[in-house]
Amino acid sequence: MRLGFIGTGNMGFPMAQNLLLQGNELIVHNRTKEKAEPLIARGAKWAESPAEVAEKSEVLFTMLSDDHALEEVTLGQNGLLSAMRAGSIHVSSSTVSVQLMGRLTKLHQEKGVFLLSSPVMGRPDAAKAARLKLLLAGPAKVIEQVKPLLLALGEVLICGEVPKMANAVKLGNNFLIASMLEALAEAITMVRKHGVKAEDYVEIINAFFGSPVYKNYSHLMLNRAWEPAGFKLQLGLKDVKLALAAAEAVHAPMPVADVVKNHLIEAGAQGWGDQDWTAILKAVERDAGVDRE
Amino acid sequence: MRLGFIGTGNMGFPMAQNLLLQGNELIVHNRTKEKAEPLIARGAKWAESPAEVAEKSEVLFTMLSDDHALEEVTLGQNGLLSAMRAGSIHVSSSTVSVQLMGRLTKLHQEKGVFLLSSPVMGRPDAAKAARLKLLLAGPAKVIEQVKPLLLALGEVLICGEVPKMANAVKLGNNFLIASMLEALAEAITMVRKHGVKAEDYVEIINAFFGSPVYKNYSHLMLNRAWEPAGFKLQLGLKDVKLALAAAEAVHAPMPVADVVKNHLIEAGAQGWGDQDWTAILKAVERDAGVDRE
Amino acid sequence: MRLGFIGTGNMGFPMAQNLLLQGNELIVHNRTKEKAEPLIARGAKWAESPAEVAEKSEVLFTMLSDDHALEEVTLGQNGLLSAMRAGSIHVSSSTVSVQLMGRLTKLHQEKGVFLLSSPVMGRPDAAKAARLKLLLAGPAKVIEQVKPLLLALGEVLICGEVPKMANAVKLGNNFLIASMLEALAEAITMVRKHGVKAEDYVEIINAFFGSPVYKNYSHLMLNRAWEPAGFKLQLGLKDVKLALAAAEAVHAPMPVADVVKNHLIEAGAQGWGDQDWTAILKAVERDAGVDRE
Amino acid sequence: MRLGFIGTGNMGFPMAQNLLLQGNELIVHNRTKEKAEPLIARGAKWAESPAEVAEKSEVLFTMLSDDHALEEVTLGQNGLLSAMRAGSIHVSSSTVSVQLMGRLTKLHQEKGVFLLSSPVMGRPDAAKAARLKLLLAGPAKVIEQVKPLLLALGEVLICGEVPKMANAVKLGNNFLIASMLEALAEAITMVRKHGVKAEDYVEIINAFFGSPVYKNYSHLMLNRAWEPAGFKLQLGLKDVKLALAAAEAVHAPMPVADVVKNHLIEAGAQGWGDQDWTAILKAVERDAGVDRE
Repeated sequence: MRLGFIGTGNMGFPMAQNLLLQGNELIVHNRTKEKAEPLIARGAKWAESPAEVAEKSEVLFTMLSDDHALEEVTLGQNGLLSAMRAGSIHVSSSTVSVQLMGRLTKLHQEKGVFLLSSPVMGRPDAAKAARLKLLLAGPAKVIEQVKPLLLALGEVLICGEVPKMANAVKLGNNFLIASMLEALAEAITMVRKHGVKAEDYVEIINAFFGSPVYKNYSHLMLNRAWEPAGFKLQLGLKDVKLALAAAEAVHAPMPVADVVKNHLIEAGAQGWGDQDWTAILKAVERDAGVDRE
Repeated sequence: MRLGFIGTGNMGFPMAQNLLLQGNELIVHNRTKEKAEPLIARGAKWAESPAEVAEKSEVLFTMLSDDHALEEVTLGQNGLLSAMRAGSIHVSSSTVSVQLMGRLTKLHQEKGVFLLSSPVMGRPDAAKAARLKLLLAGPAKVIEQVKPLLLALGEVLICGEVPKMANAVKLGNNFLIASMLEALAEAITMVRKHGVKAEDYVEIINAFFGSPVYKNYSHLMLNRAWEPAGFKLQLGLKDVKLALAAAEAVHAPMPVADVVKNHLIEAGAQGWGDQDWTAILKAVERDAGVDRE
Repeated sequence: MRLGFIGTGNMGFPMAQNLLLQGNELIVHNRTKEKAEPLIARGAKWAESPAEVAEKSEVLFTMLSDDHALEEVTLGQNGLLSAMRAGSIHVSSSTVSVQLMGRLTKLHQEKGVFLLSSPVMGRPDAAKAARLKLLLAGPAKVIEQVKPLLLALGEVLICGEVPKMANAVKLGNNFLIASMLEALAEAITMVRKHGVKAEDYVEIINAFFGSPVYKNYSHLMLNRAWEPAGFKLQLGLKDVKLALAAAEAVHAPMPVADVVKNHLIEAGAQGWGDQDWTAILKAVERDAGVDRE
Repeated sequence: MRLGFIGTGNMGFPMAQNLLLQGNELIVHNRTKEKAEPLIARGAKWAESPAEVAEKSEVLFTMLSDDHALEEVTLGQNGLLSAMRAGSIHVSSSTVSVQLMGRLTKLHQEKGVFLLSSPVMGRPDAAKAARLKLLLAGPAKVIEQVKPLLLALGEVLICGEVPKMANAVKLGNNFLIASMLEALAEAITMVRKHGVKAEDYVEIINAFFGSPVYKNYSHLMLNRAWEPAGFKLQLGLKDVKLALAAAEAVHAPMPVADVVKNHLIEAGAQGWGDQDWTAILKAVERDAGVDRE
């Protein structure tokens, strides 16, 4: 298969590499060419623009940082949409808004090409090890065609027949993680102020809950390991805002998401936006006056 | 050892039974004698009042429904405190406020007797199977004496040297569970309103999170299995309020607990207080207009 | 009329004085006798206990700081309730919980005596000038008897036939004021961070809203006049918690009250509990990082 | 002066009319020409596009419904910006985001033309009576030129030298009103559930607060006068979201705005979006189970 890949950053690079290792022809583009060089060295071809990738691909992946980047690459000057071949497929793996995904779905349909949404869960090391969880939504027939490719990247979880559904699921999941961070921070702060040692409490939580998320993040909090960030606080804020926007689009309140948003804003306002998002603990602590103690 | 046990209800009964099976002498009291009969049939002795239990015990357990009941049994007419023998130990297993535990600690000290707090995590079937998690806090020397007894009931998790610490931990844990219910309800509602099938989303959550709590509760929500209640919504509300009171006592905000509280109040105001606390989903859904659809 | 007055503090003293000036016989009691001396100098009689006041009065006022004090004075040793004469009237002016008022109502009925609740709005200077607003609730016939006395203290606003109704109204009003402080703080902080001068914004608010509350409090905020406190932040927190307890008693969420509560807790945790409650602005500002600027 | 006016809807029409009555030459454009006809009958000239208005005006007003409309009219095909004459002035009176206003400010500067922001407070009848409050922000020299024109429309309140400041102030004010509605709804619901009659409570509030906003809206709530809407609930939601976006742009949490947002979403999800925004009371009531009573 002739595949295209646009966006070879921290996440996109290992994904593109695994598609190459699977034996596909690959044509790549990235805002800065350097990041794609190792792929070219292994046989991928370089394209000067998204449009050029589109012209030469049957299935085209995009893995970009946000709505703005995906919009630019898809609809901007030398964007991919206007150059896609009839019947070809665009697989969007970016974490973007359901609103943008809805708009792009319509524009792809008008153009007679296909769009799937496949945001991923997992960090760069999981991408490298082909152990991502790939959410996937779009028309069943198109999914059938693309699924074998995605299995080269990890496990595939089908979300429904409309692309934005995969984005809603992704944002829902990220919200669930964020809510666990916030709740953990509130619980730890309360018990600590009653004199319980943080390490004792973290041990009890992990004996009791058996939750990998609690385990991982409670240890980061315990060690106050804010830097280097595994996932930056400001990206967490971006995702929580996207979850809220997704909810507002369908008239659903998410008051816990509001609470998380406000603590992430508070943390950002203290200059902690580039720290790991477990630093939300520090916002919760300072509201309780722990920083004075 | 001569043990006392006051409060042989759903949780207390199997705990008392396991202490009996361990080979201890046991003297029991309960508000209604019938519930204690099977213990008496197996060799426990009946006492007419908490005071009588206290007179005849070296270690005395209480497992009662709330602050009011524990206060009455401890400090009321024929209450246990005034009758405790010098050097004897009161192990409180009720889920009560840190405020009451603080007050009782002082009163036991003045009387020259010992108080440990040991609220438990787990439901009646875990109590029966001696697989409870027993939180435990109090002076280390007293803990040493009592711990072998508690091992007949399950696993012991030490929280610190001040009794109320075990209560803070218990309330923190229950809050964490409650926050997971609320977050799950918000996420499920949002993705469903985007057209994702609830069963698909629940499957994805469980593939991704590996959390027993999410697994258990998301299936209850999916099956809308509100009755019979595993844990009643109004008891959940009671515990969340106790967590908030514990937080307020040490000047710590817990805004997610406030959100949970409000949805449980809303659910209670619809008449769902006796349903399982996963029915919080219905409160979240009706805020989003799902009940109209 | 033979009147009794218990609690001659900042608010109670000027109220008692105005009842004396109206020409009534007055018998007074206070925890510390010194505060009542000037009243005695003007003809009031001293009683050694609440019970003694009750024995000698037809109508008996209490003006105390909180639930605990009112409970003690009414039900404690030498408390007033056991000594009240048949058909006599207890007018409670304290800001206390609806729960306590409900309980006291029942106990007064059982004793064959009357209870009115009449919490007041206004500060000591308004009490002195007989310009309080007196909320009043209880049986219409009893209100009729007492109202002429209350007119010596200010304006009377009838709330209903059950005493606790006046407390619900008082707590509702204090909540409304507190919510205006919080909203003002949020709005001021947001516009200031966009570069608008605080004094310009305060001027615009007052040109637009014509609200005495906004006017008064926005100027205190503008001048950062936290001390001396007109109304202490920790008393504001007490009242907001009472409002929440009143709401929870009838299954009503009050999410704005939760927000206010959390900012007052945050402010208290910074050590600002004795400052004026407009210092809630500082809690809002620090969440937005204004304190770093 | 040769003035332009784009957007002659409910608010824009009476404003344009007052500028005409002041003796200015006026050229108008509106999406639907019919609405502008009465102005043309009184001497205004019609232009086929925003660009045509811009070509022929020294000062150009826009009064449009939202960000999208203002963006389209300013930057779209035949938009006004590309046609503005050197040194001419664009006065934007729409309630739009601070983000858009910031972007437009930059684009006007690049083009060598001036932008003032002047959102208004008041409803159509105030516009007709020339009794609007006009917020105004932009360079002082430009304000000086335009202010005499604005005095034909009402009172001018200066917010600062950067256009977006007037938008921040407008959104702050609308948030303050919205927060008063929410707080009023919470207080009324709580006291009513304690048995106090709504009309008694509303009377007390108005005796105590002396706030025109409370007075007006509490009577609308009391009469349950949801239709016809004085200000539609869904427009209120739009404005609260804009306030939150303005706050997030400067890293400021506004948790009361989140609460209001959620109740407006809940109300919208019940199908009440076209009712008056005082219908937020119904959302608060149903959370407290009042709709079942």
